[in-house]
Amino acid sequence: MRTYRLAIIGFGNVGQGLAQILGERGDVLREQYDVDVRITAVSDLKLGSLYNPAGFAPRALLEAARKEKSLQRVDAPQHGWDSIRTIRSTDSNVVIELSPTDLQTGEPAISHIRAALESGKHAITTNKGSVALRYQEMSELAALHGVELGVEGTVMSGTPALRLGTELLSGAGVVKLQGIINGTTNYILTQMQDGKPYADALADAQAMGYAEADPAGDVEGYDAAGKLVILANVLMHAPIGMADVDREGITHLQKTDIREAEEAGDVWKLIATLEKNAAGVVAHVRPERIPRTHPLASVRGATNAITFTTRLLGDVTLIGPGAGRLETGYAILCDLLAIDRHRA
Amino acid sequence: MRTYRLAIIGFGNVGQGLAQILGERGDVLREQYDVDVRITAVSDLKLGSLYNPAGFAPRALLEAARKEKSLQRVDAPQHGWDSIRTIRSTDSNVVIELSPTDLQTGEPAISHIRAALESGKHAITTNKGSVALRYQEMSELAALHGVELGVEGTVMSGTPALRLGTELLSGAGVVKLQGIINGTTNYILTQMQDGKPYADALADAQAMGYAEADPAGDVEGYDAAGKLVILANVLMHAPIGMADVDREGITHLQKTDIREAEEAGDVWKLIATLEKNAAGVVAHVRPERIPRTHPLASVRGATNAITFTTRLLGDVTLIGPGAGRLETGYAILCDLLAIDRHRA
Repeated sequence: MRTYRLAIIGFGNVGQGLAQILGERGDVLREQYDVDVRITAVSDLKLGSLYNPAGFAPRALLEAARKEKSLQRVDAPQHGWDSIRTIRSTDSNVVIELSPTDLQTGEPAISHIRAALESGKHAITTNKGSVALRYQEMSELAALHGVELGVEGTVMSGTPALRLGTELLSGAGVVKLQGIINGTTNYILTQMQDGKPYADALADAQAMGYAEADPAGDVEGYDAAGKLVILANVLMHAPIGMADVDREGITHLQKTDIREAEEAGDVWKLIATLEKNAAGVVAHVRPERIPRTHPLASVRGATNAITFTTRLLGDVTLIGPGAGRLETGYAILCDLLAIDRHRA
Repeated sequence: MRTYRLAIIGFGNVGQGLAQILGERGDVLREQYDVDVRITAVSDLKLGSLYNPAGFAPRALLEAARKEKSLQRVDAPQHGWDSIRTIRSTDSNVVIELSPTDLQTGEPAISHIRAALESGKHAITTNKGSVALRYQEMSELAALHGVELGVEGTVMSGTPALRLGTELLSGAGVVKLQGIINGTTNYILTQMQDGKPYADALADAQAMGYAEADPAGDVEGYDAAGKLVILANVLMHAPIGMADVDREGITHLQKTDIREAEEAGDVWKLIATLEKNAAGVVAHVRPERIPRTHPLASVRGATNAITFTTRLLGDVTLIGPGAGRLETGYAILCDLLAIDRHRA
């Protein structure tokens, strides 16, 4: 039995989703994979922090977070360590970095991940900013310290698009990819396809919790652009940044555009494209009108999808959830099981 | 640099596709994966057999197979060994088993694979019969001898449906899957959707080389049932056989059925379904009328797809080619690179 002792930095939706998964499926992990996954430390700016080398019962953490909005009263030998001390000074061997995404600075995630890797601990993150800005550097640091960096949850949540690309399709020669990688805009466009004007569809997306009060990150294409940068770095080894993505959002699309497309048998989708050429890669995010027979055309609501164009297989498309607490929690488990496969 | 010395048993379309891939992408494999993949032996009932411990140039084998329809005149220290001697007595470390599928007996593939595993060699096969009939037994034999058995090419050709399921989705708890796993029938149904009667669509599929002169294996659902048995064994560890699959083909579908569905916004597809229940799994193959918004509805022509229903991610769908010489050749490479990852 191999033991993974997790230090979780940031205990919001995704961290709690992971705790729920470990609580409900810990037995399956022990039986099926011969791994024992324990949460030994949590550090969260709002809920507080705590450390117990023996590990916590996931349910106790979840109850405290939900009912008391604080981890202070959960029994533990150690309380109050900040994130960096939690990363460096606990006996954890895997750091789960779940701080909020900042596409400008990548912080505090970059500092957290660096501290983890430098301490010889694997790092798994769902933080898009850090990976979009510093993937190459952080990967090299991981290799230098003989540990791994897992980033599956940064694109399509737990739908394993990155590992499908790097582990299962890379030998086929991925030359292009096209994706619907922002669920909020796809939800809005689907609502518009079903007859709603943009403003109502956006309000709906906000009511569903898909869109922020300030929706610019989604509807102007910044979120999709960040994910496209991650795909370029992880799948195509192309060290591009946000400034290299030609970006256009969906805000100018009218109900009449949608209806015209519908009548011609087409649909509008916010498509993120990455294509290899002699100079490197071309990257753009923009609304595109695609025929209804296109594999991405039937992707509705908040669902995400990526079509990989490969030399040997032609097109391969993966469709799955792009967000959600358990869905993103699974991304972390998917990375952890991959790390375990590489070491078993 | 790790070296893989292949003994290829059966040098038809798929074997030649693999040779073409190794000829064209050998450099990429050396640079990107640090692996040297050589063809050291080929044994084929029609073309003859040959062995050279130093390896053959893939192009020389391909030219001889195409132009002379024989490998006899390719320079080699050893000619004429039968398949079993080629498997046991060459210094190959990976046996690529590509004999024609027999869903009744699984032979000669089962004997070939056993001989390979017993000789301490990895075995990779695209032979559906052997895997549908003897997967559990052959896996155990592989484990016993410390080698691996790769079967990616038995379902959806090189589209990595099996490894997506076993390596990337199994932690999410796969409870059900639904697939379009026979390209010929999907091609016929797509043609019918576009207005052709069944007989014309079938003739078309035969002209395209998708369907055999006797199309029963495809249109009566036997091929899909065999693949479903493989999916049950590989992905769900359910030791079912062909007799456990409730099977119905597409031959009774009329143009009017297709048109009625079309008018209601639905499409007919030959759907293979596998579902876990308390007793084990339920498996059936039958034509189903699904709404046009279903992820499998937009899968047209000879393309294949599988929707995995999981506890943690909900539905994840993989769409890609289901046949083809390079596509199935890639399945073998995908298995070989996975074996290499596990040993690197």
